[in-house]
Amino acid sequence: MERIKDISNSAKAQVLTDALPYIQKYYNKTIVIKYGGNAMIDEQLKDSVMRDIVLLSLVGIRVVVVHGGGPEISGMLKRVGKESRFVNGLRYTDKETAEIVQMVLAGKVNKDLVSLLSQHGGKAIGLCGIDGKMLVARKADTEEDLGYVGDIVEVNTDIINDTLNCGYIPIISTVATDNEGNVYNVNADTAASKIASALHAKNLILMTDIRGLLRDKDDDSTLIPVVKASEVPSLTKQGIISGGMIPKVDCCVEAVRRGVDRVFIIDGRVQHSALIEIFSNEGIGTMLIG
Amino acid sequence: MERIKDISNSAKAQVLTDALPYIQKYYNKTIVIKYGGNAMIDEQLKDSVMRDIVLLSLVGIRVVVVHGGGPEISGMLKRVGKESRFVNGLRYTDKETAEIVQMVLAGKVNKDLVSLLSQHGGKAIGLCGIDGKMLVARKADTEEDLGYVGDIVEVNTDIINDTLNCGYIPIISTVATDNEGNVYNVNADTAASKIASALHAKNLILMTDIRGLLRDKDDDSTLIPVVKASEVPSLTKQGIISGGMIPKVDCCVEAVRRGVDRVFIIDGRVQHSALIEIFSNEGIGTMLIG
Amino acid sequence: MERIKDISNSAKAQVLTDALPYIQKYYNKTIVIKYGGNAMIDEQLKDSVMRDIVLLSLVGIRVVVVHGGGPEISGMLKRVGKESRFVNGLRYTDKETAEIVQMVLAGKVNKDLVSLLSQHGGKAIGLCGIDGKMLVARKADTEEDLGYVGDIVEVNTDIINDTLNCGYIPIISTVATDNEGNVYNVNADTAASKIASALHAKNLILMTDIRGLLRDKDDDSTLIPVVKASEVPSLTKQGIISGGMIPKVDCCVEAVRRGVDRVFIIDGRVQHSALIEIFSNEGIGTMLIG
Amino acid sequence: MERIKDISNSAKAQVLTDALPYIQKYYNKTIVIKYGGNAMIDEQLKDSVMRDIVLLSLVGIRVVVVHGGGPEISGMLKRVGKESRFVNGLRYTDKETAEIVQMVLAGKVNKDLVSLLSQHGGKAIGLCGIDGKMLVARKADTEEDLGYVGDIVEVNTDIINDTLNCGYIPIISTVATDNEGNVYNVNADTAASKIASALHAKNLILMTDIRGLLRDKDDDSTLIPVVKASEVPSLTKQGIISGGMIPKVDCCVEAVRRGVDRVFIIDGRVQHSALIEIFSNEGIGTMLIG
Amino acid sequence: MERIKDISNSAKAQVLTDALPYIQKYYNKTIVIKYGGNAMIDEQLKDSVMRDIVLLSLVGIRVVVVHGGGPEISGMLKRVGKESRFVNGLRYTDKETAEIVQMVLAGKVNKDLVSLLSQHGGKAIGLCGIDGKMLVARKADTEEDLGYVGDIVEVNTDIINDTLNCGYIPIISTVATDNEGNVYNVNADTAASKIASALHAKNLILMTDIRGLLRDKDDDSTLIPVVKASEVPSLTKQGIISGGMIPKVDCCVEAVRRGVDRVFIIDGRVQHSALIEIFSNEGIGTMLIG
Amino acid sequence: MERIKDISNSAKAQVLTDALPYIQKYYNKTIVIKYGGNAMIDEQLKDSVMRDIVLLSLVGIRVVVVHGGGPEISGMLKRVGKESRFVNGLRYTDKETAEIVQMVLAGKVNKDLVSLLSQHGGKAIGLCGIDGKMLVARKADTEEDLGYVGDIVEVNTDIINDTLNCGYIPIISTVATDNEGNVYNVNADTAASKIASALHAKNLILMTDIRGLLRDKDDDSTLIPVVKASEVPSLTKQGIISGGMIPKVDCCVEAVRRGVDRVFIIDGRVQHSALIEIFSNEGIGTMLIG
Repeated sequence: MERIKDISNSAKAQVLTDALPYIQKYYNKTIVIKYGGNAMIDEQLKDSVMRDIVLLSLVGIRVVVVHGGGPEISGMLKRVGKESRFVNGLRYTDKETAEIVQMVLAGKVNKDLVSLLSQHGGKAIGLCGIDGKMLVARKADTEEDLGYVGDIVEVNTDIINDTLNCGYIPIISTVATDNEGNVYNVNADTAASKIASALHAKNLILMTDIRGLLRDKDDDSTLIPVVKASEVPSLTKQGIISGGMIPKVDCCVEAVRRGVDRVFIIDGRVQHSALIEIFSNEGIGTMLIG
Repeated sequence: MERIKDISNSAKAQVLTDALPYIQKYYNKTIVIKYGGNAMIDEQLKDSVMRDIVLLSLVGIRVVVVHGGGPEISGMLKRVGKESRFVNGLRYTDKETAEIVQMVLAGKVNKDLVSLLSQHGGKAIGLCGIDGKMLVARKADTEEDLGYVGDIVEVNTDIINDTLNCGYIPIISTVATDNEGNVYNVNADTAASKIASALHAKNLILMTDIRGLLRDKDDDSTLIPVVKASEVPSLTKQGIISGGMIPKVDCCVEAVRRGVDRVFIIDGRVQHSALIEIFSNEGIGTMLIG
Repeated sequence: MERIKDISNSAKAQVLTDALPYIQKYYNKTIVIKYGGNAMIDEQLKDSVMRDIVLLSLVGIRVVVVHGGGPEISGMLKRVGKESRFVNGLRYTDKETAEIVQMVLAGKVNKDLVSLLSQHGGKAIGLCGIDGKMLVARKADTEEDLGYVGDIVEVNTDIINDTLNCGYIPIISTVATDNEGNVYNVNADTAASKIASALHAKNLILMTDIRGLLRDKDDDSTLIPVVKASEVPSLTKQGIISGGMIPKVDCCVEAVRRGVDRVFIIDGRVQHSALIEIFSNEGIGTMLIG
Repeated sequence: MERIKDISNSAKAQVLTDALPYIQKYYNKTIVIKYGGNAMIDEQLKDSVMRDIVLLSLVGIRVVVVHGGGPEISGMLKRVGKESRFVNGLRYTDKETAEIVQMVLAGKVNKDLVSLLSQHGGKAIGLCGIDGKMLVARKADTEEDLGYVGDIVEVNTDIINDTLNCGYIPIISTVATDNEGNVYNVNADTAASKIASALHAKNLILMTDIRGLLRDKDDDSTLIPVVKASEVPSLTKQGIISGGMIPKVDCCVEAVRRGVDRVFIIDGRVQHSALIEIFSNEGIGTMLIG
Repeated sequence: MERIKDISNSAKAQVLTDALPYIQKYYNKTIVIKYGGNAMIDEQLKDSVMRDIVLLSLVGIRVVVVHGGGPEISGMLKRVGKESRFVNGLRYTDKETAEIVQMVLAGKVNKDLVSLLSQHGGKAIGLCGIDGKMLVARKADTEEDLGYVGDIVEVNTDIINDTLNCGYIPIISTVATDNEGNVYNVNADTAASKIASALHAKNLILMTDIRGLLRDKDDDSTLIPVVKASEVPSLTKQGIISGGMIPKVDCCVEAVRRGVDRVFIIDGRVQHSALIEIFSNEGIGTMLIG
Repeated sequence: MERIKDISNSAKAQVLTDALPYIQKYYNKTIVIKYGGNAMIDEQLKDSVMRDIVLLSLVGIRVVVVHGGGPEISGMLKRVGKESRFVNGLRYTDKETAEIVQMVLAGKVNKDLVSLLSQHGGKAIGLCGIDGKMLVARKADTEEDLGYVGDIVEVNTDIINDTLNCGYIPIISTVATDNEGNVYNVNADTAASKIASALHAKNLILMTDIRGLLRDKDDDSTLIPVVKASEVPSLTKQGIISGGMIPKVDCCVEAVRRGVDRVFIIDGRVQHSALIEIFSNEGIGTMLIG
């Protein structure tokens, strides 16, 4: 990359004013960012995402951040010597594991993000699905028992809107609960999709570790910039959407069906990818629309 | 205890109306409850404290709950095989320990309390000192280095008042931070005292595992119902305030000096002790006043 | 009754927390209480009703009190030497009588209740149907002329809602008016029913001097706890609803038909009967539902 | 008087626009009108006062009406055969008399005024000193016992401001109360003066049955248009202020001393006298200033 | 005219109170006044219109003033030596003329009116169709090119309502714009009609230099006081509506069709004509209704 | 300048996030921009200033624009063949000239700026000192009569704050008025300074046609970046501040004395100079501080 300090003040100013139409377009609109993957591990990327979020918030966008934390959970489980049992490739979540999940997500990952946002001048608040009974789940309906793996059945947006209205950036860890107080591990992509729908968000942005949807997964130049929800079945049949992308794209389709304008699958490994996606007309990932 | 179901409806109604003057007195006033000790371990007591808090909140009191979680922290440290080093009887808190403290308090203890309050119909939100930069600390100024043990230097009450004004009961775990994002373990009694002062609370209630201040610590009948801040030095000299009670009473005195009307040291082992203290004129612990 | 002072603090506290679900259920809901009968004459009962009302108000219920005042009116008429003429058993209300009714209800009974509520810490305001043109009536359509006996044709709820929103407990005496300024005596049960409907109240409570609806009017153990509006014709045919109960039950049915959730006919002679009805699941009178 | 219908539309319009500077001057200001005397008895005058009040209210003035009702009280006492005992020329007010006073003022006179205002399109609410504990009194400190004659010791303006802010014209009857619920008869001029001071009213207008302060009480042409508070003692010594005017003028002086800009003693027997006083620069009575 | 000073204070007061029902009827309603003709040229008439407007505003009417300024435009064009080209009797508006129109209307006529209103105590703000993009126009669709003569295609009422809500009287000059920033000269009657419709105004008042709609245009006594929109075609066919009145009446019909209650064509040459029209039941012009 | 399209998206994003601390610093603060000189004539510069203003507004800064328009006034005077008389080098402003000034500034320059801002998505409102009686002036106190040249004696900020609070960017042309409705030509720099003081603005930015304050006016490299108010007399004595810069710097000093934090004299000929000054720590002009 060219060195930022080599750019003249005048050019910088023009960059700022070029962002104008995008700022106007998103003013007072809600954007849900599913934060995850490499962008949540690499320190420099983390830092740059935080700055992006504070900026989006300051120019008047209602930003909501949703995160999971697979690696941190695995690390902690290992640390306490807890062995995982797998059922059809999915981790069985017993009560003890559910507790570790809650502790790591809501206590560690979440509050660390709040702290990082604070250091960049953001006014953040760390929430999980238990707060204000935001995410209500029930045991996931799977063929074989997966323990405390849950499906979200209700999103209470009050606490999100209340904190947004008070000027905070809500950071949400995807721990859900039921009426008996059981805690469930829920999929973060799905949670982000459901939260975006419930908030009638304008955009949902999924940060991933891939370039976007590729016709040839080994060739970045085959990126599909725009996908219509109606094209998804055909793309799946062709194998272009496959493996781990299938549930991810399902979340996107679901969000679009429930009223989210646009869903972006972007590459979190690229610095400022969210900002570029929102503040330019050169989409850098794949946009899913209705 | 007499069985509650043996009390007639009429008598029950009278009990309710007898609470009237106390409800009126505390209407729209702030009460900070330092929740801890046995009342936070025994399941039945926990349940009863939660009900008390929801009730206080519903009759118009702005309730703020502050909690630590020593036993849970020790349990987790043990589980991850972390040995503790002690300095003058105080646990040295290295970076790793500070992380465990944050995770256990903000992720486990805190959210479990939020969940429990929810189940009793409370509208709760779980916060720690990192959220909205509520508790700013610096390294504690002790003779020997204690690592990440902190002194609170600033309480930003915005996030507490914002959530109270939106109708939530804020549950606060005593994890603090500095401007560089370091996390500090801070004493929960001190934190509660500082929060109460900063909020101009009417009352601060410390739930403990003792009956109150006793002239003879082995004789409950020697309970001192009221202590003036000015009497504390003499009571300390007489050895009536001693050991672990010294810093606890210091917190109380500090709160009173900074404008809190009354501080109560109550016995959390007694069911509904907070409710009895607030809703009757028969103090059941020791009240500290200016 | 067991002596209230024999109940331990702990039991008292439990009584308070047992009220929680009821407080939550009625929070910010409107309850209209038709106050009358013995409960309005006996000094101790009066006192206890006032305390109940203040308590209901403090725990967040929007309480509206509607009252008549037959005995006080009769007393005053007698005092000024005014003889009453009866038409088919109903008192003929000439202009002079209407004036006495207004004076006694709006000036004496009403303001005395406001004063009593004030003494128990309530923030009350005394209104009648003339204020803010709340109750608009026209001459009752009866076979024989009854003079200034009126039927309510319109309830303007603005003044009730305005005063509720300012935090007052409105006490309403059932004097109505027409566009020419004539004053009408209106039935208090009917007025309460119409006001409850117009306010979309959750509950209407009629305080009477009977135990409730009894299958055998001489046997309290035959109390019918719940009556559906659809069962009323049959119960009337059977003579279980008869005499003065017929118009009273009609008011209840009308309120339920117009959207009030539940109407309670309770025994005002029992201390705290309203409180017991609202704050327990042991109904002590007859509940009429849709 | 020239016939109003002989005035051309154009002249009428000019009359309206001539009122402009006065309307602007009083916009959103508070005026307390002590209503009494002939203007409260003569039907045509009553009607015209009501229209004036509605007009003042509509052009943005916060109008508060305070009234007594001597003749109506006397009439009622007579009707119930209650003999009055006089002490030094002042009526002794026993408990029974106090009750009649409350009933007549708050129930009859007050609500009749509310009704009359309503008929002219005013949005009025009838209050007395008991409502919202507005007027707190104690037994008047007189040489000989006068029973329930009271001195106002506190004016709680909340209920007046609340109702003004909701757009009502508060009509206040001068019945006061103490903390034990005793009812006191208080002087209406004094009450109006105290209410005006407590509300920081701009003007206080006393409607009387005299032309104003006259140098020669038998010669209307000797009207004193403006009196300074400091001139009152001298005018009293000269006998120009004498008899019943002494306490009346004292009320005026007291109001001016406590911050009311101007107090007007006007002749209620002249139609539209209040309107003329406020909406022209030709004062028609006596103005008392600081 | 009779001399205003010959009217007694009492008669004046009665004039004021006679306005009551009209003030009540228009309270908080919106009235759009198209100001023009002689009333905008004659100094005394101007003055009197301004007073009327301030009065209407003070008694709670939301007044919006719309004005053109033909004579001032012509004057200025002449002054800069700009010759006008006419197409079918309509002035061709080239870019330069459009600029003069904007300058004269928005800079001179408009701000002079604001100044005049200020001097009479009004709180006015001068706007044109460019401000807040209030009036969006496109090139008028005429047979022969008229240059920058525009048809209004959109009225953004935000800026009008915002300024009304802040207590200002908006004075609007009829200069419109398109998305490219071109400026259009638009007909003031049409603009007033469109603004009134967009604001859901109660009344639209067109000030003209004629007495109203006359059956015989030379005989004022043949004034038609009320015209229904449905009668317009027939009246046009009869030649009663003819010439310049045709587009004017079309504006009225259009306003009525789009929800304005009543449109008045009044004679601006008569002093206080707007006030008389609104504040009496003797219409002095022609009222057009739906 | 490097071509903006050669800057990578990533670098652009970093430019945006680099602006973060500046956006945070000015959030919800008021900045007054005196717009003038070349930046108001050159079309490209105009366009770029407008974009800067919209951007500043969107990121939460309360921007107020103040402008004069010397060249446009001269042009118009010439066009109408009005010769100017000069007194001590200052133009004598007769009534006719004052009218032209008002017309050109408030009608042409002002509304053109509003239009331009609109086209870039800004929500602007065009005001002059007459609106809401914002700028009250009196005849300037000069040795020789200058006609309608005025000194501002009062700034009513209500209309500015009202429009800012409604979300508009107020564009103010420097035409002032007195209580008699006379119109005065006032110096735009002075007006901007007085408006900034009255608004308690954080910054005042004067756009000029010079690089800033130069030690050697022919050598841009001798720019003085920061000047303290106390240094001004000495700099004037040295001749570094001279000629037309003397009154300009006086306005700056006055603003700083009356509480404006910082005043910037910047070069309007440099594109985005205002944005660069605010959004970077490389001041490009001269900053005057207290």
